[in-house]
Amino acid sequence: MVHMDMCVPLIGLAGFSNSGKTTFLEKLIAELKRRGYRVGVVKHTHHQIEFDQPGKDTWRHARAGAEVVALAAPGGVSLVRSFESDPGPDAVISMISGVDLIVIEGYKRGKWPKIEVYHEGVSERPVIPAEELLAVVSNVPLDSEVICFGLDDALGVADLIERVILKTN
Amino acid sequence: MVHMDMCVPLIGLAGFSNSGKTTFLEKLIAELKRRGYRVGVVKHTHHQIEFDQPGKDTWRHARAGAEVVALAAPGGVSLVRSFESDPGPDAVISMISGVDLIVIEGYKRGKWPKIEVYHEGVSERPVIPAEELLAVVSNVPLDSEVICFGLDDALGVADLIERVILKTN
Repeated sequence: MVHMDMCVPLIGLAGFSNSGKTTFLEKLIAELKRRGYRVGVVKHTHHQIEFDQPGKDTWRHARAGAEVVALAAPGGVSLVRSFESDPGPDAVISMISGVDLIVIEGYKRGKWPKIEVYHEGVSERPVIPAEELLAVVSNVPLDSEVICFGLDDALGVADLIERVILKTN
Repeated sequence: MVHMDMCVPLIGLAGFSNSGKTTFLEKLIAELKRRGYRVGVVKHTHHQIEFDQPGKDTWRHARAGAEVVALAAPGGVSLVRSFESDPGPDAVISMISGVDLIVIEGYKRGKWPKIEVYHEGVSERPVIPAEELLAVVSNVPLDSEVICFGLDDALGVADLIERVILKTN
């Protein structure tokens, strides 16, 4: 395993827009939760985003220069941390505790095992190098050296993750 | 100091709506940042809030059962952690690292030193018990046993925080 020094095992999730990645991840999260695992998700984008709604108190505090602004309410806590540049994966992962597994979208060069969601017609072929792939999830059977699951087979992928990632840590 | 076991000193900020609390806190954050301190802010509300925008990928992941969903982009990370009930202050504070001071709005029963923002006409008198008050910030002079600053005097309050809270930790 890469990142043996981290407390929490990491899995990457890759795939083009419209490949069915978010829908698949919803199913996978629900299945892992059903098995009693606590899942964290990190999504990284290179796009500039607005982290809060302009005018809200939390937004005003962040704009005034607070490093971290947290809003706590029944059911949850939302938190925004400012970075001067584009935060790397280690910085983001270090913000997360109390989970058994972190699924990472983006940070494609990260050296954790990855699952690629492939959808025929959306892209020509899976793009993650085979040596980084734990599995491919696809809408069509693939002639691949890597184990392949159907787009609906969150159970099969959860079995694999449990066996290869969660029970070996 | 209360919370001697915590790494980060805490200060409460109290005051009624429309007392000028957010505007004062903006000035205080900016002044503390100018002095080189990294400030975290926690706001607690008893109201139910929507932590994310329905339909977004991050919202879908949380709804599917992820404990933590983080979105990283140039300039910052936003993160939502789910709680089964109303998260207590310790749970929220433990989510924050890398700051020199945490300012807490809400959690009125917390035993950290507090600053109350008072605005004549908005409430009848300051409501935080004197023994918990570090200072009062007010639009009118108050006949108080506690040190009182004007609503614009973020420098005076920052001096006090620096002397009493930050340099003694």
